Amino acid sequence: MNPIKVGLLGIGTVGSGTFNVLKRNQEEIRRRAGRGIEIAVVADLNTERARELTGGTVDVVSDANDVVTRPDIDIVVELIGGYGIARELVLKAIENGKHVVTANKALLAVHGNEIFEAARKKGVIVAFEAAVAGGIPIIKALREGLTANRIQWIAGIINGTTNFILSEMRDKGLDFDTVLKEAQQLGYAEADPTFDIEGIDAAHKVTLMSAIAFGMPVQFDRAHVEGITRLAAIDIKYAEELGYRIKLLGITRRREEGVELRVHPTLVPASRLIANVEGAMNAVLVQGDAVGATLYYGKGAGAEPTASAVIADLVDVTRLHTADPNHRVPHLAFQPDELSTVPVLPIDEVTSSYYLRMRVADQTGVLAEITRILAEGGISIDAMLQKESREGEPQTDIIILTHLTREKQINVAIASIEALQTVLSPVTRLRMEELN
Amino acid sequence: MNPIKVGLLGIGTVGSGTFNVLKRNQEEIRRRAGRGIEIAVVADLNTERARELTGGTVDVVSDANDVVTRPDIDIVVELIGGYGIARELVLKAIENGKHVVTANKALLAVHGNEIFEAARKKGVIVAFEAAVAGGIPIIKALREGLTANRIQWIAGIINGTTNFILSEMRDKGLDFDTVLKEAQQLGYAEADPTFDIEGIDAAHKVTLMSAIAFGMPVQFDRAHVEGITRLAAIDIKYAEELGYRIKLLGITRRREEGVELRVHPTLVPASRLIANVEGAMNAVLVQGDAVGATLYYGKGAGAEPTASAVIADLVDVTRLHTADPNHRVPHLAFQPDELSTVPVLPIDEVTSSYYLRMRVADQTGVLAEITRILAEGGISIDAMLQKESREGEPQTDIIILTHLTREKQINVAIASIEALQTVLSPVTRLRMEELN
Repeated sequence: MNPIKVGLLGIGTVGSGTFNVLKRNQEEIRRRAGRGIEIAVVADLNTERARELTGGTVDVVSDANDVVTRPDIDIVVELIGGYGIARELVLKAIENGKHVVTANKALLAVHGNEIFEAARKKGVIVAFEAAVAGGIPIIKALREGLTANRIQWIAGIINGTTNFILSEMRDKGLDFDTVLKEAQQLGYAEADPTFDIEGIDAAHKVTLMSAIAFGMPVQFDRAHVEGITRLAAIDIKYAEELGYRIKLLGITRRREEGVELRVHPTLVPASRLIANVEGAMNAVLVQGDAVGATLYYGKGAGAEPTASAVIADLVDVTRLHTADPNHRVPHLAFQPDELSTVPVLPIDEVTSSYYLRMRVADQTGVLAEITRILAEGGISIDAMLQKESREGEPQTDIIILTHLTREKQINVAIASIEALQTVLSPVTRLRMEELN
Repeated sequence: MNPIKVGLLGIGTVGSGTFNVLKRNQEEIRRRAGRGIEIAVVADLNTERARELTGGTVDVVSDANDVVTRPDIDIVVELIGGYGIARELVLKAIENGKHVVTANKALLAVHGNEIFEAARKKGVIVAFEAAVAGGIPIIKALREGLTANRIQWIAGIINGTTNFILSEMRDKGLDFDTVLKEAQQLGYAEADPTFDIEGIDAAHKVTLMSAIAFGMPVQFDRAHVEGITRLAAIDIKYAEELGYRIKLLGITRRREEGVELRVHPTLVPASRLIANVEGAMNAVLVQGDAVGATLYYGKGAGAEPTASAVIADLVDVTRLHTADPNHRVPHLAFQPDELSTVPVLPIDEVTSSYYLRMRVADQTGVLAEITRILAEGGISIDAMLQKESREGEPQTDIIILTHLTREKQINVAIASIEALQTVLSPVTRLRMEELN
């Protein structure tokens, strides 16, 4: 059988990784897929570099429109990124009856509903394993491996840059700005790291996982997003003393009233496997009602790990492209006419445990006032740490860990605590998850 | 659309778990699969208990032959276990054009080639996610998620009973026999635990993973199998001092000359995530050339975790049962006419690092003699631990960790060491894997 023909949009890091792995492992991939997979054309603005990377073996064009309309192309791989031109090209590819494989989480988290609907109408596949957690087959696990389960929650370390920064901050006791510079020098953070450090990239990814897990449309605009830029080294240290690590988690959880969808720095018990995922590695923890907790760990970025996911999708599409759409896995795991309208909860309605740090006057009765406010707010205390004040210093830090409470309740209590004359600084509030 | 009809062979732990999860989550599963999945008939020798468990809602028969030949049944779920009657029933089901879902690793590790060939001829699917690592979707990850990769090795904690025993031995410093009794009382070990503690169950599972990873027929009879029954508490303690944990690993690795396929207690660096998988949990670490290392973690046994895998297979079959066989994933990941004839290497040809413990006379020159033997055998030393001899005792323990060497070389060296007059006991030899 002739090889299936692929058009590649963008031959940067992931694009050249995909080209190289497909070439290196072509025999092994053909033995699995039952048919060769061949990149026939590459579109990139830098045609010279594209020719160099592909060694003159494939067509190179500068206009991606020439790829998505080319009659002999079966599958378009979109590796341009971003919401703009990528959206147009993906929709045009679909319109031309091409299947699409993409690593573009931003595009799908924002325009996924439109894109999946267009694909459904044309009877083509949009595959996106590479969009979440790089080479870890987490989309497949959620869409196919755990279909028996009512999924309860997902918590993932799904941004390698921030996990690298947090690991370094903890290991070396350094502050955020210092480590960010180091990460940029090492190539773990981009020159403009906003999407990573502000949690936006993680929010794109958890938005996709949430839709798949709970059978609802993608709703990135409803996600609550906090990054790690305001995280202080002292909180990492105190968390450690209390038996916790701080990780930037993408969390989505099913509650009776709706779905939580949030990204923020989170205290996690140090004994959990996911708390021990260090450096630029990714891991996703999924809780299903039948299977219990399962965890998926690996490299979440990089040329070949991401290419691994792109090619897995190419193999799936190669197997299923001539099949009846009913034989395929639905884009969002649930049949398109079976998506749920469950609302995403505003952050005020989220339930969490909390870490509170405050600077207080070192005098009698301070703690009594604080605990009275918490008790009156219906918030119970799980643990407390009062640091001895330094010699001659009339101030000290108090750290309180609470049991589960609703976010709006903790915010009311914090406002009252901050109004106390003996409380000398704003309260630092971090969310905490037991993940069990 | 009418529900797809399933016949269940055996309603023990996993069977009743499957029945219950299918019932509890039927809506969610139908929304995913696009079609209901209904258990129409259950075969079990204890028909009374089967009626009780199913609440009188399905047909109950005592003769499984009545299920595998029943015209309205689309899929047969085999949960009887063992090599005997299960093999006959699975082959008969296939002969009658039924798809088969099974959790039976023993059956597939031993008779898989025959069964997959019969299925291929009849154009039916034999799905077996539940056969390895319970609810962890590791078969799907290997067969579909990592198709881009030339897989290099797999190392798995794939038997919960032995991992529970090893975790307890380490935590409490107890010996094997004591912990085995405790595990039996807690229900973590069976009354006859032979298959688990002798490594046979793990060998069945790694045999299946090996075939899928490397595209070769199942070859259980070529696997090297050692259990944990001869493991001494002292070695767990010494390993700990050297920065290692001992786990029963199923290992399969591709080498130029062939494939390694082995189960044995293994020292693993304590810093590795897999070394921190405790209790009855399972985890599989896979090294692919593109993706690098990925790890899959979860419950490897139990009613509902295993049911989770059985039902995931049922959903897959429901989607693909009317599809052309070319649209399906091949049983052993590679197309049946593309399987490789790569040999499984005898254990003598395996390459590993080693942990050697020996009791020696506490006198000058002993260590010099031992290290001379190792050097002459071309074996280099990575680390050494000499325990101080107890007051008044003229003997002491020496522990040596070697670099990579071929097993037959280490065995020759051990024989020479044991021949020394100053070496007072047989050498305890354990294999060690860095897993990086």
